[in-house]
Amino acid sequence: MKANQERIEQHIELLNRFTSTPGQGVTRLTYSKEDLQARNFIKEKMIEYGLEVSEDGFGNIFGKLEGTSPDKPSVIVGSHFDSVPNGGAYDGTAGVVVGLEVAALFKENNVQPTYPLEIIALVEEEGSRFGGGLMGSRGMMGMLSDEDFKKLADKDGVLAEDAMLTIGLDPLKKKVRDHETIRAFLELHIEQGPILEEKGIQVGIVESIVGLTQLEVTVQGQAGHAGTTPMNRRSDALVSAAQIIGDLPELATSIGEGTVITTGRLNVYPNGANVIPDKVTFTIDIRAGKEENILEAVRRTNERIATGQEKGIHISVEEMLYIQPKFLDENIRSILKETSDALEITNCNMQSGAGHDAMVLSDFTACGMVFIPSKDGLSHCPEEWSDASDLAAGTNILFETVKRLMEEETS
Amino acid sequence: MKANQERIEQHIELLNRFTSTPGQGVTRLTYSKEDLQARNFIKEKMIEYGLEVSEDGFGNIFGKLEGTSPDKPSVIVGSHFDSVPNGGAYDGTAGVVVGLEVAALFKENNVQPTYPLEIIALVEEEGSRFGGGLMGSRGMMGMLSDEDFKKLADKDGVLAEDAMLTIGLDPLKKKVRDHETIRAFLELHIEQGPILEEKGIQVGIVESIVGLTQLEVTVQGQAGHAGTTPMNRRSDALVSAAQIIGDLPELATSIGEGTVITTGRLNVYPNGANVIPDKVTFTIDIRAGKEENILEAVRRTNERIATGQEKGIHISVEEMLYIQPKFLDENIRSILKETSDALEITNCNMQSGAGHDAMVLSDFTACGMVFIPSKDGLSHCPEEWSDASDLAAGTNILFETVKRLMEEETS
Repeated sequence: MKANQERIEQHIELLNRFTSTPGQGVTRLTYSKEDLQARNFIKEKMIEYGLEVSEDGFGNIFGKLEGTSPDKPSVIVGSHFDSVPNGGAYDGTAGVVVGLEVAALFKENNVQPTYPLEIIALVEEEGSRFGGGLMGSRGMMGMLSDEDFKKLADKDGVLAEDAMLTIGLDPLKKKVRDHETIRAFLELHIEQGPILEEKGIQVGIVESIVGLTQLEVTVQGQAGHAGTTPMNRRSDALVSAAQIIGDLPELATSIGEGTVITTGRLNVYPNGANVIPDKVTFTIDIRAGKEENILEAVRRTNERIATGQEKGIHISVEEMLYIQPKFLDENIRSILKETSDALEITNCNMQSGAGHDAMVLSDFTACGMVFIPSKDGLSHCPEEWSDASDLAAGTNILFETVKRLMEEETS
Repeated sequence: MKANQERIEQHIELLNRFTSTPGQGVTRLTYSKEDLQARNFIKEKMIEYGLEVSEDGFGNIFGKLEGTSPDKPSVIVGSHFDSVPNGGAYDGTAGVVVGLEVAALFKENNVQPTYPLEIIALVEEEGSRFGGGLMGSRGMMGMLSDEDFKKLADKDGVLAEDAMLTIGLDPLKKKVRDHETIRAFLELHIEQGPILEEKGIQVGIVESIVGLTQLEVTVQGQAGHAGTTPMNRRSDALVSAAQIIGDLPELATSIGEGTVITTGRLNVYPNGANVIPDKVTFTIDIRAGKEENILEAVRRTNERIATGQEKGIHISVEEMLYIQPKFLDENIRSILKETSDALEITNCNMQSGAGHDAMVLSDFTACGMVFIPSKDGLSHCPEEWSDASDLAAGTNILFETVKRLMEEETS
């Protein structure tokens, strides 16, 4: 028996209702009323599929199907169920729904796992309420101290702990999970980009989650009157910044292998129509699947910036963030590929340009990720959409992969 | 007897005290307490130099020395005495102080003019309180209707008329001056740019006041995730804008003849570090002494913008402002040149990159302008500075030029 596409579609639609912005996309902030509604739905489904439900001290939800060897570590399937403000119905939620469907397949096919199977629904991956992101997975893996968690508050000053209490969650429950209790983590996620749709491929098997560096660049020039300062006497901070930014796409393309460079934020001072700008600040976001490509992009960017240091222009660069690329488990990638091929589901290797909970768990356990196409590559918006047939295909791959992993010995 | 450099320096310093931001440059807004203080000082000096003082319905100050032929039109010398916020001690004020010094020379040299001589101190040239700029001269020449003047209010909603009353000015006085009562207008102003200082020349004789057009450009692209959107799938509004802005200096230089192009204001949307910008708006300020150069710069700018219209990028351009260049009176320019040479004051022809009251008056009467060097080319800032010896040189040129104009018959 294969994944039930209609049921998957229905679960997406039902969870889609739990939004604080009906008609304007999904807004489901962690520990909100909508979190509670979605949480209750997920727990009910877990129970319906014969799973034993529990929640940890962050409100992460676990549904466990005990294995024939109960002391063995769990194979975990799932994703997060919070959203960005006015986001879509698929980011995170799709992975939770697919997890539930995997559990349904175990039940309907009467498969008794050897290792325990756990379906997981994580909180606060987006960081939309308490900032930072990946809170549920980081917390669970012991990468968020109790002290730091106690300090977390939303923009209205509501503490995360107090918000938990308002929806009946218990922050005193056990928070950190013993890493030895996890055999593997599998996550399905929407691609949030255009590649799969463009290629007409059903699933992407994620090879790596890109590393990322973010530079903050400050260009200091000299203000002047737009009318009275001759062109050859200017130290125009915006012209210098613009010439650098205009060169970055070609720089990224020349490195290739999926390297991307983005300037998303730029501010001009004093920002008056008839004043030559004396200061411009902007960000440079560099991402690549291979660390050598990130480092090469940073090197060439700094080289390009250095050539901009001329006649009264001073440019400084500060590295705000550096995250290494994460390679997902080779064995799991092979199994995902083999099961996709066996199921005649078109597939390709991909890298993930965005961060995911699997990025956190990959430091502690074998992880695999499957991407499905995003319509028009759109995400984090109400138009976010993926086809239920792709979700069903992804479910079938994960179901077979989970079974294969349970046949193997723990390494 | 020549201009008294010490007295000029002293008058600049005394007027410099009338600021609402002591220690942080001159802030002298129209109809403020500082306006009244400076106004009283100017009127006292006018009386001291034997001038008959009057004010019009805008608060422009006139000090008149009657000529031997009282029915003849006046030769007017002066500038404005308001400032930008945190501006300098010379912009406008220098021209008023020089006007007073010209009157002093008439008195001290016992010269009786044939035509009447008027020293003028104009209000609100900068537009810092009521917006728009050139209010005093435009109003006086009948280019600001009573209806429009009555609507003028500052950022706190205070009407210009009410503000006048608070410092004892009478808005019911005659506002518009009969153009036939003006023989010529002479204005000394600081250059507000680096050219004279760089060339080591004492005065610039202004040939033309540049024409100006201001374009508002909107670049519309497609937002996207900085990590998940491949370089070749982007419609990055900021990259497109940056490539255009980066090309403008070369475009201006290739047209030459003092053509300048400036992007002073630029805004990015949504302006988040990890989002590809979907919209950028920016200004393009184009100035040139010759109208053909402005039109050529606009044509080439539009041509450059058109090449940026590609793969998902839509760019629109709106013309917000168009002002033709103004040529100053050829006869007066010749006299200024001859008197400068006779006085052995180094001089050159110049164009003015900024607007001035003479720009308004040049539509109605023969106008001449003299620039003196600005230290480091700086203006509209507390560091604004000009040498009193250059002010004295300018005074001597204007004194001789006024006398020459009074010898000529009205054309």
